[in-house]
Order: sequence, then C-alpha cells, then structure tokens
Amino acid sequence: MTSLSDTLSLLRTGFSCTPVQEKVPLIRSVGRMTAEPIFARYSVPEVHLAAMDGIAVRSKDTQGAGEQHPVNLVRALRVNTGNVVPPEYDAVIMIEDVHVTGEGFTIRKAAPPWQHVRPAGEDIGESEMALPSHHLIRPSDLGALAAYGITEVPVLTVRIGLIPTGSELVPHGFHPAPGQVVESNTVMAEAMLGSLGAHCTRYPMVKDDPALIRKTLQQAVLENDLVIISAGSSAGTKDYTAEVIAGLGEVLVHGVAIKPGKPAIIGRIDKKPVIGMPGYPLSALTVLREIVLPLVHEFGLPPVSFGTIDARFTISVSKDIGSDEFILCSLGRVGTSWVLTPLSRGAGVQMSAVRSNAYLKIPAGVEGFERGKIVPATLTVSAENANRALLVTGSHDPVVDYLADLLQHKGIELHSTHAGSMGGILALKANECHAAPVHLLAENGDYNIPYLKKYLPGEEAVLICVAERQQGIVSKNGIGFDDLPRHTFVNRQRGSGTRMLLDHQLRQNGVEPSKIRGYEREVTTHLAVALAVKSGEAEAGMCVYSAAKALGLEFRPVASERYEIAIRREHIDDPRVSALCSILISPEFREILGRLGGYDTTETGVRRSLP
Amino acid sequence: MTSLSDTLSLLRTGFSCTPVQEKVPLIRSVGRMTAEPIFARYSVPEVHLAAMDGIAVRSKDTQGAGEQHPVNLVRALRVNTGNVVPPEYDAVIMIEDVHVTGEGFTIRKAAPPWQHVRPAGEDIGESEMALPSHHLIRPSDLGALAAYGITEVPVLTVRIGLIPTGSELVPHGFHPAPGQVVESNTVMAEAMLGSLGAHCTRYPMVKDDPALIRKTLQQAVLENDLVIISAGSSAGTKDYTAEVIAGLGEVLVHGVAIKPGKPAIIGRIDKKPVIGMPGYPLSALTVLREIVLPLVHEFGLPPVSFGTIDARFTISVSKDIGSDEFILCSLGRVGTSWVLTPLSRGAGVQMSAVRSNAYLKIPAGVEGFERGKIVPATLTVSAENANRALLVTGSHDPVVDYLADLLQHKGIELHSTHAGSMGGILALKANECHAAPVHLLAENGDYNIPYLKKYLPGEEAVLICVAERQQGIVSKNGIGFDDLPRHTFVNRQRGSGTRMLLDHQLRQNGVEPSKIRGYEREVTTHLAVALAVKSGEAEAGMCVYSAAKALGLEFRPVASERYEIAIRREHIDDPRVSALCSILISPEFREILGRLGGYDTTETGVRRSLP
Repeated sequence: MTSLSDTLSLLRTGFSCTPVQEKVPLIRSVGRMTAEPIFARYSVPEVHLAAMDGIAVRSKDTQGAGEQHPVNLVRALRVNTGNVVPPEYDAVIMIEDVHVTGEGFTIRKAAPPWQHVRPAGEDIGESEMALPSHHLIRPSDLGALAAYGITEVPVLTVRIGLIPTGSELVPHGFHPAPGQVVESNTVMAEAMLGSLGAHCTRYPMVKDDPALIRKTLQQAVLENDLVIISAGSSAGTKDYTAEVIAGLGEVLVHGVAIKPGKPAIIGRIDKKPVIGMPGYPLSALTVLREIVLPLVHEFGLPPVSFGTIDARFTISVSKDIGSDEFILCSLGRVGTSWVLTPLSRGAGVQMSAVRSNAYLKIPAGVEGFERGKIVPATLTVSAENANRALLVTGSHDPVVDYLADLLQHKGIELHSTHAGSMGGILALKANECHAAPVHLLAENGDYNIPYLKKYLPGEEAVLICVAERQQGIVSKNGIGFDDLPRHTFVNRQRGSGTRMLLDHQLRQNGVEPSKIRGYEREVTTHLAVALAVKSGEAEAGMCVYSAAKALGLEFRPVASERYEIAIRREHIDDPRVSALCSILISPEFREILGRLGGYDTTETGVRRSLP
Repeated sequence: MTSLSDTLSLLRTGFSCTPVQEKVPLIRSVGRMTAEPIFARYSVPEVHLAAMDGIAVRSKDTQGAGEQHPVNLVRALRVNTGNVVPPEYDAVIMIEDVHVTGEGFTIRKAAPPWQHVRPAGEDIGESEMALPSHHLIRPSDLGALAAYGITEVPVLTVRIGLIPTGSELVPHGFHPAPGQVVESNTVMAEAMLGSLGAHCTRYPMVKDDPALIRKTLQQAVLENDLVIISAGSSAGTKDYTAEVIAGLGEVLVHGVAIKPGKPAIIGRIDKKPVIGMPGYPLSALTVLREIVLPLVHEFGLPPVSFGTIDARFTISVSKDIGSDEFILCSLGRVGTSWVLTPLSRGAGVQMSAVRSNAYLKIPAGVEGFERGKIVPATLTVSAENANRALLVTGSHDPVVDYLADLLQHKGIELHSTHAGSMGGILALKANECHAAPVHLLAENGDYNIPYLKKYLPGEEAVLICVAERQQGIVSKNGIGFDDLPRHTFVNRQRGSGTRMLLDHQLRQNGVEPSKIRGYEREVTTHLAVALAVKSGEAEAGMCVYSAAKALGLEFRPVASERYEIAIRREHIDDPRVSALCSILISPEFREILGRLGGYDTTETGVRRSLP
C-alpha cells in the first residue's frame, strides 16, 4: 500500500508528461490552456485614430487660441471617431468646440498635442505578447485575440484511452438485468477530463478475460498519452488489471492508501502512465480527482480547484490511521458559520456525489475527531454557489425533492439530510441546519411543538405546515395495520417520526414489536420502505401515500399527521429561508402536493410560533 | 439616460424570458442547466447485491454460531462482490470467515440480518428525483445519470442572434487596412454566451445602411429569442441602431448610465429583447457582463460569478456621480492584504481585459475616493487563481512578458503594471506589489540601491539582477544620441528610468531638453517608443535594444544599465516570489535574454541585499 503523497511524487518523477499541442479555431478555444505564447500580428490600432468626432489639427497651429482670441484654422481635416489621423496632424478638437466657416474652422481653445488621439499601438504593439503560454483562455480574451489577428490557437491536450472492463457491464442506455451494471465510470471520466481539454477515447467494453484486456490495452497505449483501465484493479479472482499491466510493462503501485479508492494501480508501459481505476463509482471518482487530475495537470491541463472553507463537521469520525479518507458532504452557511454534513459513505452511492457540494479530506495519521470540530472543506462548486445552499435536516418526505426543484428556480440549492424528525430537532438545536421537517406526535395529541419546547427550551422558533399527510401500510396486496403480525415487515430507523407513529399505534393496539417479523430491519426513507416491499424483501411497511403511489403499490391509511418545517426565528429572514417560506405558500407547491397524492393542503403554509 | 438598476428591472419585467429547452446527449451535458427534474428510470441496484466476496446466508440460520460453537450451513450460496443475493437470503459472510467443507460451509460467528448486503435502491430508488431542474451539471453527476438510465438530458438554452454592423469592419483573420477594424465583439459575445449554453448565430457583417440593418434584424428576431446588434448605438451620424429598432418595434432605453458602455440600447420587437451593444470593445464587454448576462440568466442560463474580495485600491479616483463605473484591475494578495491596481481605462484597450483578473464597480452616487481605500473587487477568475497573482510594478522591459510566460508553467500569474522605476519604488514602499523592476542611476554611479535607501529607509530588501541591458537611440536610419536635436523625438514618461537616463545624458552633454522636438510627447513602454518611430510619428526615441530589434529598427547604444528587480525581504519566501527568483537564475531565462538581444547576462541572477 503506497501513500497518496508518495503516489503523486511518483507520478511527477516517473513520467515525462510532455505537453501535447493541438491547434483549435479561436472560437473553440475558451477554457483551454495556451500551448505557446500568443503574439499580436500587428499593432492595434496600427495608425493614430480620432477618439472623437471633430477636426484633426496640428496642435502648434492652435496655440494662443482662447475665448477672446478665436483662431481660424485652414489646415485641418473633418474626422469621425475611428477615422485615421494623418501623419501631418497631432491632435483632434471635438466638433462641439469648432465653428465651421466658409474659409475653415474657428476654435477658441488651444489643443495640446495628442488630445483626443488614440495613438498607434494604444491597445497592443506589433510583436507584443498578448497571452503567455499555460494561460486559461476566457471569453473576454477572445475579442482581443480576434482583434490581434489570431484565428487559430495552439492549446494543450492529452490523449487519454479509457478501457471499461467487467463481464457484468452493459452500456449506458441499456436497462441492466439483475447483477448487471451500467458502465458509467468511463462516461464520468470522459466528461471530467474532456471538459479540461483532453481527447478521450472510450474503448469498447472488455469482458473479464486477461487476453482480451491485454489486446485492448496494447492498442490504447499505442494511441494515447495516458491510459485508464476501469475496474478489475482489486485482488479478486476476476481482477486481471495488475497482471495485464505487469505483462506489458510494470506495476509501480498496487493499492493506494486512500478511502474510497484503495485498489488503485499505477503502471508504466512504453514510458506511458497506465492507471487502474477501481470499479465502485465513488472509488473511481476519488481516484480521478486525487490521482488523475494532478497527473493531467502535469501534462498542462488546467487545475480544478474551488478552494476550501473552514466548517463545523456535524458527526464524530473514527478512521483507519493509515489512509487519507475522503468524505463527500453538504456544505452550507448557517448564520455566520459554515456547517459540513457528511453524506452516505457507501462507495456505490453515486447520489452522494450528486448531492455533495464539498468533501472533507481526513489525512492519514489522524484517527478521528469529535463532532463539532472545525475542518477545511474542499469545495466542488464555487463558494458563491455553496453560499446558496439551504440545509434541511430531518424527516424525509418525497415532497422535499420537489421543494428542492422549486428552490433551484430561485437560485437556492436545497441539501436534504434524512436524519428523521428527532435528528432534525437536534440539528436545529445545534444550529447545523436552516430548517427541520418534523412530524412528532406528542402525548397531548399535538404535533412537534411539545418536542421543540423540550429540546430547544426558551428558543424562538416558527413551524410552517407542509401538509397533513397520510401514513399507512404499503403492500402489494392490501395488507392493513391489523394484519402486520402475519407478514414480514420493513421498518424505519429509530428517531424517525414514522417509527414513532408505528410504535404509538402498536402500543395503542397492544401489539408487541417482537411479534412483527422484520421490525429490526431499518431503512431511512419512505421510498426505501416502498422499494423493499416492491422488491419482495418485505411484505409490508409503513410510509406516506405518495411513496406507495410512485411505485404503484397498495396503501391502507393508518393515520394523518401534521408534517411541518421547523425554523429558528434567527434564520427566518435569511434569503434562503424566505425563499423556502414563499414556496410553501405558492400555488405551484399546492398543485404538486395534489398531484403526488395523500396530502391534505388545508393547513399548508400555516405558521405557528414558539414560545 | 437610464440607471443600470432601472435597466435591469426593465429587463425582468418587460420580457417573459420563457426558458427554451433542448435535449443533448448525456456526455455533452456538462456545464448545462437541467430544464426539468431528472428521475431515476429504475432502482440502483435493482436487487440486493453482495458487498463482499463470500457466502449468502439466512441470518437466522447463523444464530448461536461462535468461536466455540461452529455452525455448519447447508443452505448457503457462494457469491462474489456485486453478485445477486437471492430473495431467500438476507446476509453475506466474508469468505475469510468461512470454512468450506464437503457438506457445506462452517462458520464461527453469527451474521446479523443485512450484513454485507447492498440493499436494492441503496443508491437511488425507481422514480426518485436524481437532479432538480435548473441544476448546473457537473462531470461527477454524469456517472450517476448514466447509471440511472439517462442517455439524453433536457437542458436550457437561448437562441441569440448577433449582428455586427459598421462599414469599417473586416472579419477576423483579415489584416485591417488603416481605419478598418477587425470585427471581434460578436466573437467575444459568442464565446461568452455559447459557453453558458446559448446557441449563437453570428449574422454576416452589415454596412452602416439602415435598410440593410433592418433586413438582418427582422430575420434575426424571427430566428432567435434575443438579438444583439453590435455597434451603431451612439448618437453619431452613422449610428442607425436605435432608429432601426424603433422602426420595427420600440426603443425602451437609449443610453445606460454605465461607463464604459453608455450608448447601450434596450429595444423590444415582437416581444423579444433587442440589445444595442456599443462598438468599443470594453464598452461591449461591460454591456455583455452587466446587462446581457443577467438577461440570459432570466432565461435560465447559469449565473457567472466568482465572488468578491475586499482589496486596497492603489489610486485615487474621481468620477461622474451619475454613472456606475467599471474599472478593470489586477488583483493580488501582498502579504496578508489584497491589493487592487487599475489597468488602462481606454475603452479600446482590450489588453486591459486580458490582463485583468478582477474589476471594480464604483456605483453611481459616489464621486470618488482616496488611494488606499478598501473596496470590493469583483473577481473574473477563481479566488484560487487570483491568489496565484504575482504583482510586479515598475519599469517596463519586454523581458517581463517572458518572465510571465515562464511563471505560468509554475502556476504563477505575473501581473505587470508599467509605472516606471520610481513608480515601482513607491509601490514597493506602499506594499502594493511583490516586486519592482528598476534601473535608477544614482549620482554615485550605482544603480537602484541609493533610491531604495532613500525611499524605504531602514527596510530590508533584496535586489536581483535581471541583466545589464543596453539603452540607445532607436530610428529608421541610424540616428545617434548627438543627432537628437536635429530630429523629432518620442519620450518616455516622467519617473521612468529611461527618461532619467536620457535627462542625465542630455545634462552631461549640455543639451537643453527644449532643443529636443517631441520631448513632451510621452509613452509608457519601450515598445511604444519603437512603434512611434516605426509609424513615423517620431524619427527617434530611446529604448532597449530588444524593442528596436523586435520591430526591425536601427539602434545606436547610449549606455548600459543595471536592470534589477527589487523585493522586500518580508516577501522573499512567498511561493510566488520564490518562483520568480528561481526563474531569474534558470538557464531557460538566460537563453531568452540571449535570443532577445541587448542583454549582458554576466550579472543575471546576482543578489544584493539592503541594508
């Protein structure tokens, strides 16, 4: 196992990474790096030009002119802005200051030399360097280059071969059969590297057969400056990547001390780097970001960096001391402090990449730390963009995704953490979120307010009703609450309002939880409950109507509950929170609730205040 | 004249800006905004999968297993990572923990339910929203979308017609004759708007003829959602844009209170916005950035924003109180504070756009402020990128551009301000730059050190020699220093070392400056001197040999001088400054000095320290 920093040094010293040039038409050069300095072909302007509408004059002829001493000029030339000022003249007088007579032009003010003249070379001189090499070309550079006579730009590129391997793969666009996997890692790699100016070739998918992999790899090494082999980099019985690389060249590193991404391989064939990229999508993403991007930067492609922001981490972490660990996160500013919440760490959970706007690198040597530690979050979007994140932590409901959709139109990015209602209350208390969706039934029959009073005593808060929503039993065949002891069940996690509702109903009906088979099987969203039922893992579960409807399952109502969003008073005027509040009372949102089904909108948008 | 904020409100309220959709293949969707929410076509994974190599078991069969109580399993299935876990099983045991026997599998530890199983829907559930609408698609989103069965993505676009007008225009790629101008503004507009996802059509250039402009405009309005007419927006005799718009629709705004960019026009034809964009390149850039980008954002294209940084402005400003003024600047961090230096404000100087990494907006209502004020600089590059800026202020030499080129390879961006040697000393004193190139001859015959001692008394500083360089008289016909009184001359600005050298030489030779025709004509770079001579504006000037050589002019040496870079001791370990220092002693740099000519490299890289 090689450390990440040793791996990166090896990439810098073990390969020459000679920059590769290509010429592209000017208009297609935005976002590319110049391969050579670009020089102006000629001066701009090439001759002196009038900067005003008026007359071109010899300044010495105007000497002595004044309010009381008009001077009549015979040697002068009518010019408009942009016209050439011929060599015999050295100044321009604005037409407003000129009296045109039969015999010439009368002026009442002397013109200093070079007044209102754009001198030749004012913008740039012939042979002057307009852009250095290794300059990232911006749209505003293009006007200048066009004006300086540049039509083609030499830019840097790298030819990258991407080889997807795995007998279980199907190309994207095909619905995978059980056990098949859509080949998406080389699609992500091509998108990422192509956007930096690389020329990527995705080779046809190769089955787990060392001879076939070897053949494709030979071709790819011949045709490219860098080759990435997707999957097969572990040490399993069908993992041939290392063996094939070793057969054609040498394996320099097998196993990098990073998580996710550990099985990465660095090889060398014909002096060219060959990277073995693990098959799990988030392992692949980590290897691309932490190993391949620095490598293509050595070839001269632009760096990708949005900087870092110090933020408060919302969980305690313990980790393997030997590895750099990377955790995808949601980053947002709550009040004046930044908060960093980890997303699911499963290496197969691509949605964590989609949902994240930052990640945390916990370096090797660190064993872990306590919740609340201030850590440097690495941004994967601009800081401006991260500053538009609305952090929502608490009970999950499918409608939260639709709130996210409506908020995007206002430029606000909703980041939802499914922590259950109690998790939401605690996140609100710790100022780790802006808003907490909750549906907690108290003993007095009221929802939510008793819990806020208990956990945030004395705090000012506002509750805005999303809807009265129906919870019930989801099944394929009309199982009702009373039937539960006779069927397998899938539960929600402890602390979720749905779990508490179930427990409340079981108590009221005198049913022991131990009588429910599967009571200990926990999932964290309504849709996950419905999916478990649809897939046959369980026969019944408890969820909201909209989740059952989305998957075409049957639903027997158990109870209606008040689903509200809790917000601390201090955040209510935050523009991100106000945007949320205005959407909750909008007709579009009511229309969506109606369409999803199972929501009574009578109370939608109603506010309740504490204390 | 309409204020910018009124103009922007009018754009929001006066047009419907209905988003326009198109479908693009997944791989080409990076950087685009989703037009609709994207839903997963199926669950990922669709069935339970093994998360480890091992055996799939029924967890209840494993109950009671322990070190001292091995359990033999008959109902179990050998699985590899990624294999389907059939419905009858609910856990996986790692192969390392299994003893395979003839009759089955022996285990010594119970497996809790769902151990090492990736449940169906772990990543995403069927029908779940993967991306909301108005989401800016990143490369890391693409892997997920591919995995979720998405092959085409509905994204937002705007069709934009760009009409270049002006009889003086030639297309880019043609060398303009005197008085002609390369049409570059619509090239810049296409690059800027196209990179956000707009479909731009550049119409053929139209002469200054209202009938022709009208015809093209009619077609463009028909074919696009938004039309931009380049140039002809002023009130001059050949400015027809407003008249033509009024003839086909209405002119809502003629003249926006911004500088540069004042002559902008907002019109409406067939309910569509038509923008009149001024012809001067930096006026056009300002109108694109301040008016057109917010307008296309209304259509749903992504916002362009790199944020702002508070910085110390290095000049005093006075301005027209009625306008928002925008000044292109170089921004860099000197020590712990950010410094903002304005670039040339000529509306025709496109190099200011190329050289800038930020701009300052001074709002209407502000009359000006004193040098040293802390102002919010708006970035035009990432903050990371701006943090790599090396600010170099002082004497100009063509070799500074080559230093910039070599620094780019190390990721450092040299921003050079041509302020002359004395300007450099003063900028160094005020901590407004990292390094100051200087060549100031003192009365004791030494260069630079006496000036640093005088202006930065007691300060620690380092001088690194660039070269001993030759200054001399540039001309077309071998004019020497003694011939100067008989020819027209072009001078350098007061405070520049070259000007001081000239004055020194004139004094020594007893020549009165008033005897030199053109002594009062000042330009700010060596190349500008050479250009003035080449263009015939002057017969002679004083500059370095490399500038004369670059333009193929004759050169008569006058003196050799020590051209050094002065750095305050406190900045010498700054990585940007160390990169500069290492380049000054590199063989590549010596090679460039030799190639440019006129530089004696004996002392190149030699350090002198103060005090």
